[in-house]
Amino acid sequence: MNVEVIKNGKHHRFQVKQGSNLMDFLLKAGMMTGTECAGRGICGKCRVLVHSGEVPHAASDGASQLHHNTGYILACQSFVRGDLIVEVPSSEEAVDRKVGLHQLPQTYTVADAPVKKRFLSLAKPSLQDQHPDFERILEKIGITGNAPLRLLQHLPKTLRDSGFNITVVFAGNRLLDVEPGDTWGTGYGFVFDIGTTTIAGYLIDLYSGDVLGVDGKANPQRILGADVLSRVASVTERFDNLSTLQSLILAEITQSMRGLLEERGIAGSSVYSLVIVGNTTMTHLFLGIDPRNLALSPFIPCCRKRITLKGSELALPMHPEGDVSVLPNISAYLGSDILSVILTTGMHTQEGYSLAVDIGTNAEIVLSGKGRILACAAAAGPAFAGAHIHNGMRAGDGAIEAVRMIGSDICLKVIGNTPPKGICGSGLIDAIVTLLKAGLLDQRGRLADGEKTVLPPFLKNRIRVRDCYAGIRSPVRGRAGERTGYRCYPKRHT
Amino acid sequence: MNVEVIKNGKHHRFQVKQGSNLMDFLLKAGMMTGTECAGRGICGKCRVLVHSGEVPHAASDGASQLHHNTGYILACQSFVRGDLIVEVPSSEEAVDRKVGLHQLPQTYTVADAPVKKRFLSLAKPSLQDQHPDFERILEKIGITGNAPLRLLQHLPKTLRDSGFNITVVFAGNRLLDVEPGDTWGTGYGFVFDIGTTTIAGYLIDLYSGDVLGVDGKANPQRILGADVLSRVASVTERFDNLSTLQSLILAEITQSMRGLLEERGIAGSSVYSLVIVGNTTMTHLFLGIDPRNLALSPFIPCCRKRITLKGSELALPMHPEGDVSVLPNISAYLGSDILSVILTTGMHTQEGYSLAVDIGTNAEIVLSGKGRILACAAAAGPAFAGAHIHNGMRAGDGAIEAVRMIGSDICLKVIGNTPPKGICGSGLIDAIVTLLKAGLLDQRGRLADGEKTVLPPFLKNRIRVRDCYAGIRSPVRGRAGERTGYRCYPKRHT
Repeated sequence: MNVEVIKNGKHHRFQVKQGSNLMDFLLKAGMMTGTECAGRGICGKCRVLVHSGEVPHAASDGASQLHHNTGYILACQSFVRGDLIVEVPSSEEAVDRKVGLHQLPQTYTVADAPVKKRFLSLAKPSLQDQHPDFERILEKIGITGNAPLRLLQHLPKTLRDSGFNITVVFAGNRLLDVEPGDTWGTGYGFVFDIGTTTIAGYLIDLYSGDVLGVDGKANPQRILGADVLSRVASVTERFDNLSTLQSLILAEITQSMRGLLEERGIAGSSVYSLVIVGNTTMTHLFLGIDPRNLALSPFIPCCRKRITLKGSELALPMHPEGDVSVLPNISAYLGSDILSVILTTGMHTQEGYSLAVDIGTNAEIVLSGKGRILACAAAAGPAFAGAHIHNGMRAGDGAIEAVRMIGSDICLKVIGNTPPKGICGSGLIDAIVTLLKAGLLDQRGRLADGEKTVLPPFLKNRIRVRDCYAGIRSPVRGRAGERTGYRCYPKRHT
Repeated sequence: MNVEVIKNGKHHRFQVKQGSNLMDFLLKAGMMTGTECAGRGICGKCRVLVHSGEVPHAASDGASQLHHNTGYILACQSFVRGDLIVEVPSSEEAVDRKVGLHQLPQTYTVADAPVKKRFLSLAKPSLQDQHPDFERILEKIGITGNAPLRLLQHLPKTLRDSGFNITVVFAGNRLLDVEPGDTWGTGYGFVFDIGTTTIAGYLIDLYSGDVLGVDGKANPQRILGADVLSRVASVTERFDNLSTLQSLILAEITQSMRGLLEERGIAGSSVYSLVIVGNTTMTHLFLGIDPRNLALSPFIPCCRKRITLKGSELALPMHPEGDVSVLPNISAYLGSDILSVILTTGMHTQEGYSLAVDIGTNAEIVLSGKGRILACAAAAGPAFAGAHIHNGMRAGDGAIEAVRMIGSDICLKVIGNTPPKGICGSGLIDAIVTLLKAGLLDQRGRLADGEKTVLPPFLKNRIRVRDCYAGIRSPVRGRAGERTGYRCYPKRHT
């Protein structure tokens, strides 16, 4: 079948197999960057305008029908049965946000570095000292472990070319590399925090502890679902999606690493360490581990302990023998990200009670005190910005991010100072607070009838109760989850 | 250039780049199986008959000139400068021997196996027991180590498909695999002894200790030299030869393993262990480690200690996580093969003095006693059968392997009961003993003049002193090396 796709005013022509799912095709062809619900016909983010051709729909639920009547169809629910001309609305493209990332606190020092270097000026072998090359090094640094084969293969030449002046790179009992000459003081590491929505990467000088570069990206796995459950569901539906999800995240991290290294003119071979944190689903997907049981009762992760790999195992742009450490998770819904919050804030060592809430796509809540730490997680982000909000969008250009009542006026702050295209999480919270203060919203998230409420007349006329109802209930559910979390704990466990 | 090669009566046509070395081309084209001296113009095993065309010679030393006058040239010293027709004499082909291998003593038992299995029937997870899959296994078998990524990736499915009835495969603190169901009692290993000339392989049942199959092969590295020094020299000359040498031995071992497994209908995935012994050069070449310093004073190996790899690192037909153990060497010229002789004979635990001599291409000599072990090595094999003997050949069809005087008659035993083509090591030793007994040879290996010696008249006429001279001096040098070795030690060290 001939499918012509119009995007940003340009026409692209494709040959598509009859019966193909339209969204699958558009995603693969790079004509669409993603949806929020992984093609379950819920979020409406994959709608396209049909210029010519007949497109049969799989289901005929309200949402897709709605779009159909306007000339729009949901690509995820549509199949190619004949020649077709469709337009992908440019406003529907996923916004790749510029994530504002703060510098890490500079508490990282060489003493903590997992990988160490030592310069050695070795005695040259002689007929009186026939020590083998490898043992000559091991004895000097007092370790007994193995070495990578490729190191041994070239060790004799490295030693002799450098006149036996070398720098050994080692981690624990393992030799990583032998570099000619003195390279002490040169060594870099990366830390990546893989969020469901956002990936944050930091390039760190292992000797000074300085953060040399920071990069924030949207998690490209969003094309298979906005939240962890959607992504796990996509694997349950089609097991191939697991390797797609892993490839997407690895490609994005690789690109981030390359960019940061290039900025500073640093070679990948002097990156010896990569630390990964994230929620349990994200770390499973990063490693390509089957995540399906995370979404099924009794919610069992494959592994919780720290997993250590070599850079070469994931083909990352770093030293092939460098350590990739995926930090330990707590449970299926409490990952190494919240563990890092605990360690970074040091809340486990503070007197009295401390409460930490990490609001991302999920909100993790930790309570520390009396020598115990209690933690739980609840859905948050998707409720604010994702699939269930009609005009919801991520915090990119055009998103309402703040709502205030000044006098009797409603003031909006829109990212990028453009006319608003939708509303993001923080905007939605503001809107709810504003509506609550105005007495328009009850505790259960129901909008009061404008008729019966004391409101400025200009507002009374503008509020459409029905459309807003579902939109407000979702974040309320999210907040309710959180509050339940941190309200329950002190009562039950102190 | 057009080169036509006649071999076994068949004509093969090739396009060859002008200036190519003729031997290199013939080896690559599979028209020649090998030489003894790695193309140094010494052994004469690469001689070919020129039917038409001019072939310039690199050197014009005696040996090559000799062949040139007869229409034969040394391919290793010759270069393609124009169209050419050459014949490779079929009698010059390397003989792939049927090596007679004895069964290993059946002292190998499951207690010694490096890899262990344990069947586990695990409690299924529940809301009361949310232990992660991986930790559920580790705690049961009491280890804390890492697991290969590919195991973790499929662990959730393996556990659930098998109803949590699994067999774990582990080595030390490391999990190798998790197999569905009960596979206890199924596990195999290989032992390979890589000799300079011969490779011997054994397939072993790790549970019963039975030797299930034995295979002997000629070491295919012979195309780059008959002895360790020639092979190291070939790497010194062209560093690429190192990877060629490694590929050759890996391919041969792979083929041996495949053959033995097929014979018994065993899957490679249940081979968990491969043990390699050999002299120091052979183990360096097996691992692809630069061996050049083994041949240069002060003769330094890259490593002496045991090297452990995974099967997947060398792409061998076994479990990808299985252990490949290259046993430790003693020094540049005393490898893990002689170490195995010590361990197998138990000579280090016996009372009094024990002497072991392992005559291969090199002869290793070990003296044990008074709580000490002394060892040395000396050239042996090549002296007997290799490069320096005009009619020397390896112990294959047509080789004289025994020489006896019965009355005044000389009786020859020829392998394969064919007319003799040459003489192999054991034949040469016999011949020397016979000559010594007949009073024809002095202690220094010089042939006495037939005229001046009491000999049966029929022998007097047949002995040509000049041709035999070099042939006899070589093994004498070899034996002299050995004798020096084991004569010196007791005197100096007891």
